[in-house]
Amino acid sequence: MRKIIIGVMGPGDDARKSDIQTAYKLGKLIAQKGWVVLSGGRNVGVMDGVSRGAKSAGGLTIGILPTPDSSTASAGLDMVIVTGMGDARNSINVLSSDVVVVCGMNPGTACEVALAIKAKKPLIFINVNTKAQTFFQSLTRQSILICSAPDEVIAAAQKIVGKQFKLAHKKS
Amino acid sequence: MRKIIIGVMGPGDDARKSDIQTAYKLGKLIAQKGWVVLSGGRNVGVMDGVSRGAKSAGGLTIGILPTPDSSTASAGLDMVIVTGMGDARNSINVLSSDVVVVCGMNPGTACEVALAIKAKKPLIFINVNTKAQTFFQSLTRQSILICSAPDEVIAAAQKIVGKQFKLAHKKS
Amino acid sequence: MRKIIIGVMGPGDDARKSDIQTAYKLGKLIAQKGWVVLSGGRNVGVMDGVSRGAKSAGGLTIGILPTPDSSTASAGLDMVIVTGMGDARNSINVLSSDVVVVCGMNPGTACEVALAIKAKKPLIFINVNTKAQTFFQSLTRQSILICSAPDEVIAAAQKIVGKQFKLAHKKS
Amino acid sequence: MRKIIIGVMGPGDDARKSDIQTAYKLGKLIAQKGWVVLSGGRNVGVMDGVSRGAKSAGGLTIGILPTPDSSTASAGLDMVIVTGMGDARNSINVLSSDVVVVCGMNPGTACEVALAIKAKKPLIFINVNTKAQTFFQSLTRQSILICSAPDEVIAAAQKIVGKQFKLAHKKS
Repeated sequence: MRKIIIGVMGPGDDARKSDIQTAYKLGKLIAQKGWVVLSGGRNVGVMDGVSRGAKSAGGLTIGILPTPDSSTASAGLDMVIVTGMGDARNSINVLSSDVVVVCGMNPGTACEVALAIKAKKPLIFINVNTKAQTFFQSLTRQSILICSAPDEVIAAAQKIVGKQFKLAHKKS
Repeated sequence: MRKIIIGVMGPGDDARKSDIQTAYKLGKLIAQKGWVVLSGGRNVGVMDGVSRGAKSAGGLTIGILPTPDSSTASAGLDMVIVTGMGDARNSINVLSSDVVVVCGMNPGTACEVALAIKAKKPLIFINVNTKAQTFFQSLTRQSILICSAPDEVIAAAQKIVGKQFKLAHKKS
Repeated sequence: MRKIIIGVMGPGDDARKSDIQTAYKLGKLIAQKGWVVLSGGRNVGVMDGVSRGAKSAGGLTIGILPTPDSSTASAGLDMVIVTGMGDARNSINVLSSDVVVVCGMNPGTACEVALAIKAKKPLIFINVNTKAQTFFQSLTRQSILICSAPDEVIAAAQKIVGKQFKLAHKKS
Repeated sequence: MRKIIIGVMGPGDDARKSDIQTAYKLGKLIAQKGWVVLSGGRNVGVMDGVSRGAKSAGGLTIGILPTPDSSTASAGLDMVIVTGMGDARNSINVLSSDVVVVCGMNPGTACEVALAIKAKKPLIFINVNTKAQTFFQSLTRQSILICSAPDEVIAAAQKIVGKQFKLAHKKS
């Protein structure tokens, strides 16, 4: 049976320490649930934090790299998907995730949130400022879940994943 | 000598009438400047309006289509670039534009604004609400130009294009 | 009305002198027909030759660049589409062309021929060795046209373009 | 430590029964080595065969889907990377693989072989006809390994993977 993939998106080179620490905790908790962590794959910021966190708990990690080789990959990754497509790979991050968790905010992250809204992916925000919350919520009738701690994120993701499983189960 | 490309981004299926009308006027004015109009290429919304407007003034128009064939193309296009890449093509729209003009707002447009900020492309907003202005300006130190009429957009674009030309001239 | 786009594909850094000379002549002749020349856009090999050739006859030229900026662009280009997607942009080259002309052969060109066959695009070969002809013809029931001079290529393209025009005319 | 990824490429809808059977055996053997199987991900042909084969032996499987959702995914996949990019995703298949195994031949597969040669990825052929062997070998000085049974493929892959490991080990 297909594994559940939780995408965690957030700033890279310009991530705040607090975003990276939150990402690390998120990775650990996602791994403990038995879910796969998917990120942008580079060895900086939230991508790196969440991958290392998941790894520390024995989780499975995939990174979707923008670069044409794997030299930029986080050491926390089990599997590196090398796209060589720059930011066009943001679309892949979003489409491949069952739930999109957003940790922190910068232009690249904003692009991914916008794509997640367009693709109607469930969205959970943590460490996202009010301006960003207000703006993105104004773009969609779907409600964006705002969390203030990693375990709240996991609880929210669990609800979403549970519903999706029931839906898939009904169909088949 | 290479032509100047003005990218005009905005809502598609969900565009407001006023966005489409503004896009039409923008297209006309851009064409009168001798600049190429680039858009997302589909036969709806701002993409369609700006291409038809430019065409009405004898301008040159390119559309970067998300679909794998040209059946979705605006009738206002001279040249159709068929990507078959869905929203991953947003990145191409932005990287190929000398100036990015944003007319209206929706999730797809928000993605393009975010990518333009990341790529440090000059940004001009028209028909963009205050929430969006505030949010995107918070993501960058570069100043986003806010205009309230199509001819203001053209004047702003002219200044930017003039500076770029001088820079390129100095280098060579 | 939409312009006809002739894609010309061939080796870049490793192009033979004869491929570049043929590409230059092809560009000139395509431009004289009033068709747009589309290529991979870089300032080397067949891409550069065909763009400069078309330019020398006052034609219109587009390049689909693999790089994330336009610093690698041929001086023969009117319009540069910047993809930042490396070889994933080969697919765009093919899908955007009404006719795919292949001049010379190397791995990148082979990729484009294969994609053109898959997309059922009309294919014309010049300066392509027998091994390649035999292999690619074995992949498709559609017949690949083999030419030995630039004016033969133009005559073959004219026939294809004429048929497409009639088909489009019947539909509308 | 990062997992070794073996990409297996081959025909989809038009695969021969023998290609699918070979792919199934390859998947099984790759899984038994502890390597990850990567494929184009769809529920047909070689992609489907190799994923199911690997699954039958408890292996880990990733599919890089061309479609914008996962409805086309093979039931043998653990993880689905959804690109929505059509054949532009072929480039990702190749760049993400430590070794590219080619099983059967059609236009899509030919595109991937060409990209693998360009990216200097180790290539192993099985069920590939002489015309294709001759053509692709003519494009590169790197030697393409020709195998006639799945266990030969695994032995060849093992040699390559062993060498890469030693190289990576020396560097660090």
